[in-house]
Amino acid sequence: MLLPPGVLGNARRALCRSLSHNARSVLDIKGIYPPITTPFTKHQEVDYNQLEENLQRYSSIPFRGIVVQGSTGEYAYLTKEERLEVVRRARKVVPKDKLLIAGSGCESTQATIQMTEEMSLSGADAVLVVTPSYYRGRMTSHALIHHYTKVADSSPVPVILYSVPGNTGLDLPIDAIVTLSQHPNIIGIKDSGGDVTRIGLTIHKTKQHGFQVLCGSAGFLLAGYSVGTVGGVCALGNVLGTQLCALEKMCLNAQWEDAKQLQHRLIEPNAAVTQKFGVPGVKQAMEWFGYHGGLCRSPLPPLTDPEVKELRRDFIANGWLLPESK
Amino acid sequence: MLLPPGVLGNARRALCRSLSHNARSVLDIKGIYPPITTPFTKHQEVDYNQLEENLQRYSSIPFRGIVVQGSTGEYAYLTKEERLEVVRRARKVVPKDKLLIAGSGCESTQATIQMTEEMSLSGADAVLVVTPSYYRGRMTSHALIHHYTKVADSSPVPVILYSVPGNTGLDLPIDAIVTLSQHPNIIGIKDSGGDVTRIGLTIHKTKQHGFQVLCGSAGFLLAGYSVGTVGGVCALGNVLGTQLCALEKMCLNAQWEDAKQLQHRLIEPNAAVTQKFGVPGVKQAMEWFGYHGGLCRSPLPPLTDPEVKELRRDFIANGWLLPESK
Amino acid sequence: MLLPPGVLGNARRALCRSLSHNARSVLDIKGIYPPITTPFTKHQEVDYNQLEENLQRYSSIPFRGIVVQGSTGEYAYLTKEERLEVVRRARKVVPKDKLLIAGSGCESTQATIQMTEEMSLSGADAVLVVTPSYYRGRMTSHALIHHYTKVADSSPVPVILYSVPGNTGLDLPIDAIVTLSQHPNIIGIKDSGGDVTRIGLTIHKTKQHGFQVLCGSAGFLLAGYSVGTVGGVCALGNVLGTQLCALEKMCLNAQWEDAKQLQHRLIEPNAAVTQKFGVPGVKQAMEWFGYHGGLCRSPLPPLTDPEVKELRRDFIANGWLLPESK
Amino acid sequence: MLLPPGVLGNARRALCRSLSHNARSVLDIKGIYPPITTPFTKHQEVDYNQLEENLQRYSSIPFRGIVVQGSTGEYAYLTKEERLEVVRRARKVVPKDKLLIAGSGCESTQATIQMTEEMSLSGADAVLVVTPSYYRGRMTSHALIHHYTKVADSSPVPVILYSVPGNTGLDLPIDAIVTLSQHPNIIGIKDSGGDVTRIGLTIHKTKQHGFQVLCGSAGFLLAGYSVGTVGGVCALGNVLGTQLCALEKMCLNAQWEDAKQLQHRLIEPNAAVTQKFGVPGVKQAMEWFGYHGGLCRSPLPPLTDPEVKELRRDFIANGWLLPESK
Repeated sequence: MLLPPGVLGNARRALCRSLSHNARSVLDIKGIYPPITTPFTKHQEVDYNQLEENLQRYSSIPFRGIVVQGSTGEYAYLTKEERLEVVRRARKVVPKDKLLIAGSGCESTQATIQMTEEMSLSGADAVLVVTPSYYRGRMTSHALIHHYTKVADSSPVPVILYSVPGNTGLDLPIDAIVTLSQHPNIIGIKDSGGDVTRIGLTIHKTKQHGFQVLCGSAGFLLAGYSVGTVGGVCALGNVLGTQLCALEKMCLNAQWEDAKQLQHRLIEPNAAVTQKFGVPGVKQAMEWFGYHGGLCRSPLPPLTDPEVKELRRDFIANGWLLPESK
Repeated sequence: MLLPPGVLGNARRALCRSLSHNARSVLDIKGIYPPITTPFTKHQEVDYNQLEENLQRYSSIPFRGIVVQGSTGEYAYLTKEERLEVVRRARKVVPKDKLLIAGSGCESTQATIQMTEEMSLSGADAVLVVTPSYYRGRMTSHALIHHYTKVADSSPVPVILYSVPGNTGLDLPIDAIVTLSQHPNIIGIKDSGGDVTRIGLTIHKTKQHGFQVLCGSAGFLLAGYSVGTVGGVCALGNVLGTQLCALEKMCLNAQWEDAKQLQHRLIEPNAAVTQKFGVPGVKQAMEWFGYHGGLCRSPLPPLTDPEVKELRRDFIANGWLLPESK
Repeated sequence: MLLPPGVLGNARRALCRSLSHNARSVLDIKGIYPPITTPFTKHQEVDYNQLEENLQRYSSIPFRGIVVQGSTGEYAYLTKEERLEVVRRARKVVPKDKLLIAGSGCESTQATIQMTEEMSLSGADAVLVVTPSYYRGRMTSHALIHHYTKVADSSPVPVILYSVPGNTGLDLPIDAIVTLSQHPNIIGIKDSGGDVTRIGLTIHKTKQHGFQVLCGSAGFLLAGYSVGTVGGVCALGNVLGTQLCALEKMCLNAQWEDAKQLQHRLIEPNAAVTQKFGVPGVKQAMEWFGYHGGLCRSPLPPLTDPEVKELRRDFIANGWLLPESK
Repeated sequence: MLLPPGVLGNARRALCRSLSHNARSVLDIKGIYPPITTPFTKHQEVDYNQLEENLQRYSSIPFRGIVVQGSTGEYAYLTKEERLEVVRRARKVVPKDKLLIAGSGCESTQATIQMTEEMSLSGADAVLVVTPSYYRGRMTSHALIHHYTKVADSSPVPVILYSVPGNTGLDLPIDAIVTLSQHPNIIGIKDSGGDVTRIGLTIHKTKQHGFQVLCGSAGFLLAGYSVGTVGGVCALGNVLGTQLCALEKMCLNAQWEDAKQLQHRLIEPNAAVTQKFGVPGVKQAMEWFGYHGGLCRSPLPPLTDPEVKELRRDFIANGWLLPESK
């Protein structure tokens, strides 16, 4: 039987609300996630085999789950079909007890709604929705609240906000986060800005709604835990996932001195694969640790030789790789 | 007969080069262009009828041509199919003696190449290619030169660079512009940054290649002409197109005092429809001047009542609208 | 007897080095400090009596010491004579077991050297030296290393670096900090930037030299302790000094859950007296807590009535002031 | 006879107003000015002899006058006494038919008032008052209007506003400029921001008060003239003063094509002595053109050898120096 769209919409929305209330009571996103990279063949096509092999290797690390198509996944360079196929492939490989979170953000609200629905149908347990940003001068709290509310209203799975000013030039305002934290289908945020004061205030002002805050980078993971974050989605997890999970455990066990020592050694490698060298840096480092890294899609250029050397130094200096013998 | 792709590529590239050398010798882009808005129905679908009606009205203004899918066209909110359909519809309406320039920029090089080709097949005389920007930290001169070279190599029509830091957070570096100005299929740039010193230097360093620089905003059109720009692609052209063409004429006729008086009266309305109120501001003002404006796609919110009043004041204060009677 | 300047310089420098090595072994700056405000009379003269009364009240709080002429002290608005007299007056009142740290930074190296020497003679136990910043485009690591080395070479008391990008538009680069941390007379840094990742890396790369890092704001005090800072110089200490010292104690005693609860309640009041309302905000809040606040020197304007209300709300909402009865 | 201060203040203020109305009717500041550098001896003392010799050389160039202690004059590194002595020395050498404009800005209003008065007594024909900026977060239009009004109320000579965001991180807001342009003792502004749209709007909104706008850099001098500026205070004037005066003349004579050619050749050398290499760049280039340049005060470092080479290339490439023979 075909229902008229409006009715279906309303029915689904009601169902959603009900589901998401339940989902909320169960969907605990605490833990560490790698926002996985997308491997490409030498012809710049998505290499789904390498993708699956990387995911299989990640299965042995105590991650809470996997994020596909965060900024590290070059989602901005994938077609709609590729974005969905990556979700489907990941779903096949990621164990059922781990979460599969998919980045479904697009610039327009309607494209985001549609992508969210399709990613959900493709197997995502939750979606990560980046702030639209091309018209950032007009992306007021009002506009962003409206956008995320529409997306969350219609999403079949829980929504996680995503603020990544390094890529978008836009910080999701705290007042917008506080308003959105009350939506039954919005369960948390990935904050990649690195301003721990802001993160602490976000937690303070949303804790009565059970809102969950994830660090968007490994550089401030310990500091984040100190103020109440519940985990992290960290590009460095593609490379040093075991170590990030060890840091998580130290934080949860209040081994603060050990945590501090480990955190210190992660800052430089993390900076190298984020601000300094970005996705090409993640992919290069992955090669050294036994994963499929490879090249990015154009226009993201590969690292130059001096950049590769500097990247390597950042891992060596902190004891994650052995110095090269001559 | 089907040629293997590599061969076709090379053949086409050679053809392109040859064509574009010729094109270059004839494709003069001097003049004023409105980067037209995209009207939507109340269900947020593209309203192609209104689009065509606006274009018909613009036909009577001495524009050099029309730009579709600049930032003002909300291109970031359109599907690929909509982007192409807008080009096709515009081609039907825009007179043959006027240029139809289409914004074909996407984040990835291959998507931009494909969009460029299809827009060309849909009737665009030239394409305007915005800088990719999501991974702006890695968008070095090297990366951007590579991106634009690939696009220009395969584009059937001349390519115009597009630097719009207000939206992308990225200024196309001058050294990249200088290198790209030597490509036979790259004929100019739309620079929306407003730094006239930079624009002057760009012109100085590219003039031996016949490179054409267009102002990306009406606020510095006169200043641009003083240092050698050849025209403008100005959001304000959607509203006060006749006046912008009058300003162009004054500049070309060296009526500098008149030009100054007119330029002065355009700065506030221009700022209102760009930095201050953006695309929703352009569309609101269009309504007052007899065009179809309407709403933007979500998440771009409509202006609030106080914003509409302020926008109106900016036009009234400069003599473009009559004060409201009480 | 008058020695030729070079000789005196060298002799003093040797003495300094020797002294400062000793000083270093003893000068532990761990703890919380209020960077005190400078009260003014209604004629905008420094009100030394009020200054002394504030200091007397602070004596009962377990601060490690007092900072005069941080940014909160309006040092940029004081004459050289006033800057020194504030140090002398503070010295009279601050108990001997507490440190008196004085901000001696000036734009030129020679003025900073002279101010440092005179503040030391006036009773400062250490000096806090802000980065010169007027020509920030040329303040390379090289320039800043040279500046601080010259100052530290000749300073009779230990030097603390001071990076406050909110006022100076300049972050002291980490490589400069690492180099400077090896100078025997440079013992630490006050970092007001709030980037805890950067602070963690600073600590990681300087710990072998016993370098001490102080948080420059109360908003990230707990996060700072988690990565190894040893205290804080916090504008909010002028108002809620007891609470900041309580937070310090919780951090040192590993009462992380309590610390988190308290930290959360301090973020908004802290933001109110720093980014949001600045020194006029600190002074207004001081009045509510029994200190002499008063007005700032012109051109720093007093808060408007709505600003005062908002400031008050930020304290009420976090339980630091009672809601007004109607 | 000693008058009570209030009375004197009022009397002087009245006198001022009257004088400044007259002054206004006569003080035409149209033209080109070098903001002169301050030469130092090898012991970093002000070298007044070299200062005077430079000024004597400038006497033969058709400048409208001389600016002492703009940013190029390292005013931030001079003591109060040195600042005044520079004015006195300049007054002795600068011909009576040329204006001597002195930078009197300090951070506090009262220090600026006092410096303004003393510079006036030392021979300045007008003062240039930079925006206070250390507490830039609180430097609202309201605060800045109050500051400048107080300074202008008491200044014996006309006041010129000075907005230089590259050094201060602060743009004097247009609404503040418009309000201040109505003050009888505020006659103009030096705008070094380079945003010609903003400059055009400033002129549009202040022209009924006869307000005079000077370009603060040679890179946009022609563009400035096109929208109504009346001259420039340009660091490059220390080096290529004759050429800047030639450009002025072309603009005044409507030789726009010649002006454009000349302007183009000035952009790179100008950028080299401003954003790229700053005051050390100006001083180095002065040496090549027969002036006393020399070193800056610490912490401003001298150029490195590669920087000197690049600076030289920027002059050679534009035909202002001959290529080195090998």
